[in-house]
Amino acid sequence: MKLTLNSPLDMHLHLRDGKMLDDIAKYSAKSFAGALIMPNLIPPVTTIKAIIEYKERILKACNGEIFTPYMSLFFKESYTPEFLRDAKPFISAVKLYPSGVTTNSEGGVSSIDIKKLAHIFEAMSELGIPLCVHGETDGFVMDREKEFSAVYESIASAFPKLTIIMEHITTKESAELLKKYDNLYATITLHHLLITLDDVAGGLLNPHLFCKPIAKTYKDREALVQIAINADKKVMFGSDSAPHLASKKECCGCAAGIFTAPIALSALAELFEKHNKLTNLQAFASDNARNIYNITPPKKEVVLRKKEQTIPKEFEGVVPMFAEKRLTWSIEQIY
Amino acid sequence: MKLTLNSPLDMHLHLRDGKMLDDIAKYSAKSFAGALIMPNLIPPVTTIKAIIEYKERILKACNGEIFTPYMSLFFKESYTPEFLRDAKPFISAVKLYPSGVTTNSEGGVSSIDIKKLAHIFEAMSELGIPLCVHGETDGFVMDREKEFSAVYESIASAFPKLTIIMEHITTKESAELLKKYDNLYATITLHHLLITLDDVAGGLLNPHLFCKPIAKTYKDREALVQIAINADKKVMFGSDSAPHLASKKECCGCAAGIFTAPIALSALAELFEKHNKLTNLQAFASDNARNIYNITPPKKEVVLRKKEQTIPKEFEGVVPMFAEKRLTWSIEQIY
Repeated sequence: MKLTLNSPLDMHLHLRDGKMLDDIAKYSAKSFAGALIMPNLIPPVTTIKAIIEYKERILKACNGEIFTPYMSLFFKESYTPEFLRDAKPFISAVKLYPSGVTTNSEGGVSSIDIKKLAHIFEAMSELGIPLCVHGETDGFVMDREKEFSAVYESIASAFPKLTIIMEHITTKESAELLKKYDNLYATITLHHLLITLDDVAGGLLNPHLFCKPIAKTYKDREALVQIAINADKKVMFGSDSAPHLASKKECCGCAAGIFTAPIALSALAELFEKHNKLTNLQAFASDNARNIYNITPPKKEVVLRKKEQTIPKEFEGVVPMFAEKRLTWSIEQIY
Repeated sequence: MKLTLNSPLDMHLHLRDGKMLDDIAKYSAKSFAGALIMPNLIPPVTTIKAIIEYKERILKACNGEIFTPYMSLFFKESYTPEFLRDAKPFISAVKLYPSGVTTNSEGGVSSIDIKKLAHIFEAMSELGIPLCVHGETDGFVMDREKEFSAVYESIASAFPKLTIIMEHITTKESAELLKKYDNLYATITLHHLLITLDDVAGGLLNPHLFCKPIAKTYKDREALVQIAINADKKVMFGSDSAPHLASKKECCGCAAGIFTAPIALSALAELFEKHNKLTNLQAFASDNARNIYNITPPKKEVVLRKKEQTIPKEFEGVVPMFAEKRLTWSIEQIY
């Protein structure tokens, strides 16, 4: 059995910077035609100059692979409509982080006061710049996304022309909220389609499956799987692939993030095939994103075949999801 | 400010065996007058000979401290009333583990079929041997204790003269269940009085606060604190102090268990004082256990004083709860 994906896209990707960028960008650049690059560097990416320079560093790290980094700005309350207009040609989205909710989000928004931010959201609506949101409060870890839904609702209803992407959704409630507002969309990661809190903390504690938002319940996972495999046009693949060195994962205070870039397409093919929905993977892993972001990625064909592979123990010191485990699908050819 | 505790007891303690036993028994033996010793060794403690020999090894490891190890047998479906009668002089309880729910519980009970186990429960009722239970199903990690409550209810109602100890309870529902049956009692750990899942996985992942049953919500913690600090006669302190070498905690598949033995009484004093309930600590950490188990521990006075201490980074390679953090209370004198 085989499947050819046309220009797969990863609409939520952490490529980091420096040596890590140089080490791991190739794993995304090889099998994807493009990815939305997250801006939570130290310092965060908040200027046109920083966007241009980061994009150059990414392209250099991609070793000539056919791969478009779609850039995002780190949302700041101080942005002006003029700045956003000037930035527009260089970016595909602005990413809003509530302060402190995930890796390097300390400079994020401390409180999402719609009135105070209205001029920014209005400018983004008019310019057609999507707003990507890490939708979590600072509440109890299992309730953070649910508690944030009121914020999504208030932005979505107040700015009906603003394209809002609920990033890496993890709950049944989020899957249902998508239906309520035309301008709400979502990314779903590979890992949230596959794991629950049981995989993180139900047996031995597994730091390599620890991520933010944390994996939730079986009911939540099932709701995500259903909208993904049925090619719901409101959702698209965003890996949230987030490399940390093994030494930062297997330690006393382990960082959140799962590295899935090298295995994502094979694992998605396995999941979609299991549900007899293989043909819907093109929509989830590319077409929906093209429509939501209004982008045309470079041509790239990725041929996947049902052929077992064993995932390496690590890639450049980063332990991937499913390290040393088997997947039933593999990438056969890319052209 | 100071508090003198008379013969404090830890009614749920893992002392392990071999070098670990020799290394860590002294931390319990020093400040407690006695403890109920858990039988989940490899192999589990299931014979009178094993009980006698394990008790001897414990006493040897205690370096002559005044300390009574109250021994427990690992529940086996094959126990007979005759065996229990013979074992009675050597034990204080039988501990039931559903198979696979925690460290070294693989030999536990695969399904709790009340009818099949009735002769054992009846013999224990008649002999006055308490049944200690690790009350978790194999369900979703946050729901395991709640799902187990039906088993508690069926045993408690079918064997009204059997003393049943719900070990290390973690939920509001368990705190409420206690009120429903005269013969239901519970131990509460230090850590479940202090942490929630947020401390384990809300920020960075903290393997040193990973335990089974996993820490739950704020509402759950508050319910436990209320029955503990108000000297509810149905509950007693059981640390579930469970040492693992740092190398087994700060790794890829971290074992469940928190080592609290050396700091437990100081941390309890801090908690009870914070709630202006310091005088109730005697009931929680000793008197209730004496009544529930009908035991008279050796005389030992532990004088605690409100005086800051910094917890060591480790004890014999085992990282304790609150390593390198400060506690406002300290043990001043023991005699």
